[in-house]
Amino acid sequence: MGIHTYFRSLNDLERIIRCPGKFKFEEHSVSAHSWKVVQYAKTLADIEEQHGVSVDWKKLYEITSSHDYGEIFIGDIKTPVKHYSMELRSLLQQVEEGMIEHFIDENIPEEFKAIFRRQLREGKDSSVEGRILEVADKLDQVYEAFAELQRGNTEKEFIVMYRQAIIKIKSIELHCVDYFLEHILPDLVHEGMLSPIDIKQITEEALAHQP
Amino acid sequence: MGIHTYFRSLNDLERIIRCPGKFKFEEHSVSAHSWKVVQYAKTLADIEEQHGVSVDWKKLYEITSSHDYGEIFIGDIKTPVKHYSMELRSLLQQVEEGMIEHFIDENIPEEFKAIFRRQLREGKDSSVEGRILEVADKLDQVYEAFAELQRGNTEKEFIVMYRQAIIKIKSIELHCVDYFLEHILPDLVHEGMLSPIDIKQITEEALAHQP
Amino acid sequence: MGIHTYFRSLNDLERIIRCPGKFKFEEHSVSAHSWKVVQYAKTLADIEEQHGVSVDWKKLYEITSSHDYGEIFIGDIKTPVKHYSMELRSLLQQVEEGMIEHFIDENIPEEFKAIFRRQLREGKDSSVEGRILEVADKLDQVYEAFAELQRGNTEKEFIVMYRQAIIKIKSIELHCVDYFLEHILPDLVHEGMLSPIDIKQITEEALAHQP
Amino acid sequence: MGIHTYFRSLNDLERIIRCPGKFKFEEHSVSAHSWKVVQYAKTLADIEEQHGVSVDWKKLYEITSSHDYGEIFIGDIKTPVKHYSMELRSLLQQVEEGMIEHFIDENIPEEFKAIFRRQLREGKDSSVEGRILEVADKLDQVYEAFAELQRGNTEKEFIVMYRQAIIKIKSIELHCVDYFLEHILPDLVHEGMLSPIDIKQITEEALAHQP
Amino acid sequence: MGIHTYFRSLNDLERIIRCPGKFKFEEHSVSAHSWKVVQYAKTLADIEEQHGVSVDWKKLYEITSSHDYGEIFIGDIKTPVKHYSMELRSLLQQVEEGMIEHFIDENIPEEFKAIFRRQLREGKDSSVEGRILEVADKLDQVYEAFAELQRGNTEKEFIVMYRQAIIKIKSIELHCVDYFLEHILPDLVHEGMLSPIDIKQITEEALAHQP
Amino acid sequence: MGIHTYFRSLNDLERIIRCPGKFKFEEHSVSAHSWKVVQYAKTLADIEEQHGVSVDWKKLYEITSSHDYGEIFIGDIKTPVKHYSMELRSLLQQVEEGMIEHFIDENIPEEFKAIFRRQLREGKDSSVEGRILEVADKLDQVYEAFAELQRGNTEKEFIVMYRQAIIKIKSIELHCVDYFLEHILPDLVHEGMLSPIDIKQITEEALAHQP
Repeated sequence: MGIHTYFRSLNDLERIIRCPGKFKFEEHSVSAHSWKVVQYAKTLADIEEQHGVSVDWKKLYEITSSHDYGEIFIGDIKTPVKHYSMELRSLLQQVEEGMIEHFIDENIPEEFKAIFRRQLREGKDSSVEGRILEVADKLDQVYEAFAELQRGNTEKEFIVMYRQAIIKIKSIELHCVDYFLEHILPDLVHEGMLSPIDIKQITEEALAHQP
Repeated sequence: MGIHTYFRSLNDLERIIRCPGKFKFEEHSVSAHSWKVVQYAKTLADIEEQHGVSVDWKKLYEITSSHDYGEIFIGDIKTPVKHYSMELRSLLQQVEEGMIEHFIDENIPEEFKAIFRRQLREGKDSSVEGRILEVADKLDQVYEAFAELQRGNTEKEFIVMYRQAIIKIKSIELHCVDYFLEHILPDLVHEGMLSPIDIKQITEEALAHQP
Repeated sequence: MGIHTYFRSLNDLERIIRCPGKFKFEEHSVSAHSWKVVQYAKTLADIEEQHGVSVDWKKLYEITSSHDYGEIFIGDIKTPVKHYSMELRSLLQQVEEGMIEHFIDENIPEEFKAIFRRQLREGKDSSVEGRILEVADKLDQVYEAFAELQRGNTEKEFIVMYRQAIIKIKSIELHCVDYFLEHILPDLVHEGMLSPIDIKQITEEALAHQP
Repeated sequence: MGIHTYFRSLNDLERIIRCPGKFKFEEHSVSAHSWKVVQYAKTLADIEEQHGVSVDWKKLYEITSSHDYGEIFIGDIKTPVKHYSMELRSLLQQVEEGMIEHFIDENIPEEFKAIFRRQLREGKDSSVEGRILEVADKLDQVYEAFAELQRGNTEKEFIVMYRQAIIKIKSIELHCVDYFLEHILPDLVHEGMLSPIDIKQITEEALAHQP
Repeated sequence: MGIHTYFRSLNDLERIIRCPGKFKFEEHSVSAHSWKVVQYAKTLADIEEQHGVSVDWKKLYEITSSHDYGEIFIGDIKTPVKHYSMELRSLLQQVEEGMIEHFIDENIPEEFKAIFRRQLREGKDSSVEGRILEVADKLDQVYEAFAELQRGNTEKEFIVMYRQAIIKIKSIELHCVDYFLEHILPDLVHEGMLSPIDIKQITEEALAHQP
Repeated sequence: MGIHTYFRSLNDLERIIRCPGKFKFEEHSVSAHSWKVVQYAKTLADIEEQHGVSVDWKKLYEITSSHDYGEIFIGDIKTPVKHYSMELRSLLQQVEEGMIEHFIDENIPEEFKAIFRRQLREGKDSSVEGRILEVADKLDQVYEAFAELQRGNTEKEFIVMYRQAIIKIKSIELHCVDYFLEHILPDLVHEGMLSPIDIKQITEEALAHQP
């Protein structure tokens, strides 16, 4: 029944925990993740602008802040499922989109429907903004997995998550990716030196990975 | 790599929280739910035996204790998704079964493979044991939703959950269902008298529901 | 030492709980709050645009996403302290700004310093974007307090918080404020009907309040 | 007043935490423990059957699922107390049994009294099922303590718990114990290699222990 | 091995939760309870002094601060067990005292042994200080139960706890008890007016109770 | 309105978490901290008495039990802020004292006002009792930081906290400080041997520190 229903629903994402099931020293809500993605994306876009790239800030704002809103309807479906088969992946996406559409139909007033459809669309397209979102999203996977590895969490899931996020990031063409690889990742690896897990080696192996 | 991997994985279900996202006064893990289903089923089967029905306890043991093991792979996918469309529902079940099959292939030693395939199958068939499992599973939904309603949780989700569980239970032909409706549900409704939510009326409305 | 330190620090805000000390049915981290403010502001700005107001989305992005970053340094200093005296309030603001400045000096590379200074400035100025941020921030106070009142939390703090946020919002001249008062607040009050606390009366009293 | 009281009470065991007081990376409820014991026992019984041993599944079901129900009345009285003296141990057992008897008298309908008395009896007798329960219960102690040691928990309590559980298990004559020692324990020790604590040595020392 | 072991052990009491098993809106550790008892006792003793009663502050300090230290060894054994029979109660006390004695023997250096024996003795004797401790301990039961009742917790346990604590307090002859009954309890009852549970009636009934 | 308001407020300190923001394996409430300070101070005072020093137990009781009550009003303002500048520190202290004064004025009955003013004063003066409180307070910082370092927490904050607490303690002239340095600290360092962090070296470096 209107924008109130939408505003009220935002609260539910603070109760959806990322990476459910696996042992974690530190839990993260989808809300907190979403905020960090917004923050990373802002700095990544600043780097693009410094290199003369033009950024559509309204679009970036919309796609980063809402990129996981759909998890209100389908929860945090575990990554292995999402990638189990292309068929399932595409069907899950249909479901998520169907449920978002249904939510908009039922709750959003006529004059906002077009806006909400645009904002809640899948944002990871090939535009600069779409690529920045992809990097920012993976960056949080790097940081979440790093914090577990650094404290000695030996669940294989976090090595895989860390490794795949780095491989994905380095495959994206952006000035901010170059900056990340040259200036941010080395600091992160340096901070991880005390960990019982060899973060440096995992990182180097990921950086050397050929698709 | 063997039974160890299976035993170790059981622990993960204590970290998967039922009904994610919604505000709850009390959270329940899938492990705790599974144990309560085992306990309810035991008493329900006792009632069947008292009425001369023969119960296959080995089968009942297997299907009740393992009935949500698949959530290790797909998390607690929210009920609305599961029922969004018959197509999705059936595909999700294929995925879950595929992932269980994959887990057995990779981890369970040859001599146990057949046993695990039988134990981790979907248990809610039309046999006495399958129907007891269905009732026991819904019974926990009744109790979990009741505890929220009793404390004044006004999220609609819990009214829907309570109501649909009762409607499902009363549709199943078993002596223990008769016992539940005559002897257990009235006590539960009586205990809920102090709630700001009218549990009695919701119950009566559900009992009067025609399919 | 660089952007890594900044990215890493974002995580700490998920561990700072709003309104410490008081009993709450539901806790909120500063991260989750920040994300909700970003989301509210987006829709509020959409409403302004619908009325022909021009919005600087880059500025709005920067000030909403970072508006509570300073709490990393000073924690969630309780509102009563903040308003205890104008003298303290101004000194606390000096401290927060001093610590942010110190953080930028020590950690942010030369080429980003100006950007970070701009982004981490106090954003609640008299511009459209500054006023939208003020409304969005108070809106989350409304929703957080409402959720407690709705569940029967009788701590006076939440009545005060709810009431003062509404009084502040209605004092701000924006099209989105009109929309909130006409279309969103009535839905919220309606949803709160079941509460043992008379949310309707508190709301009406706040709306009638003259400065 | 009836089965409802019993069903409702099951919920309380999700709130009783095992091994209270000691620092743990991961907490376990009595419910979750009970479910894992049910699961281990099922596989242990499968191994017995593979060796031609006949298993009474109804009895196994009853004693494994209910084996810690009595903790509802006396909480998780810490192991050191239980073993402080034979006199206390026996008295505590009298109390637990007395309280269970009292609960049955007050709440369980006449026609179920005999069933509940049988189900809530101490199950660890010398029968195959009783011995399987003993092994399954200790197995969970092995896994709970292992998970702490693996993450570097240096509380002595967990070394003692791990060690004594292994010593107890190997003293029980069952085919499944042989299987555990030959096939499961080595995998577990292998997984624990990365731990700062020398799990392998503690295990070998326990295996070499003579009563 | 010395005072270090004792200082280190204090930490464990922050992990022992009072009244385990029962649903509570708010959990309390034994540490926090112990601190509140110290604080209540201080004010109660101030009241005694105002009436010319002489208070031994060193004794009061010792017995209030340490009065639940023994729960490190036996956990928070639930009240029903403690009172199940006089025989058990007395045996449990023997065990607690035996374990404290054992702890002192093993860990406390010779020159402190007498001091620790005096401090960790049962403090609720008939002296002014012993009676103040008894009142302070029950006062925290009043406040813990009150906070649950005020929020609508319908578990009978908290009504019983509240009622019995008031009955016990009013049976103790102290000036501070008169003060509590005349000045503190009415304020508390007044604050509880909004509760769905009739706290006033429970209080009056308890005050009218004849032993 | 009276002592009830004061007693009721004590509960809030169980919800204020020390050292907010930083990752911790174990959280501590201000209540639990306060209780441990009371306990340490008791033993420290016993040591003074053994050396013939006369201790005012009433004063010690008052200042140790209430030493962090003011955090109810200003929360746990982070140490970096407190020490950011002498000017801020002194102003913050004025605020805390002002709010305590205000609380006493509004809530404490006339006949108790003088007592509460004395009890809630800053207790860390140069008297024996004031110095014991200072040592006890720092001792808890030692133990809290130690527990994090021992488990491999690599946040620099805890090394700084541990180090500065030891430097402060050794600067205070008391018999109990000598005892701590000779008998307690070596046991603590010994217990920390297994930690991945070199606690021994940090300790020795702190002990060698010249002001």
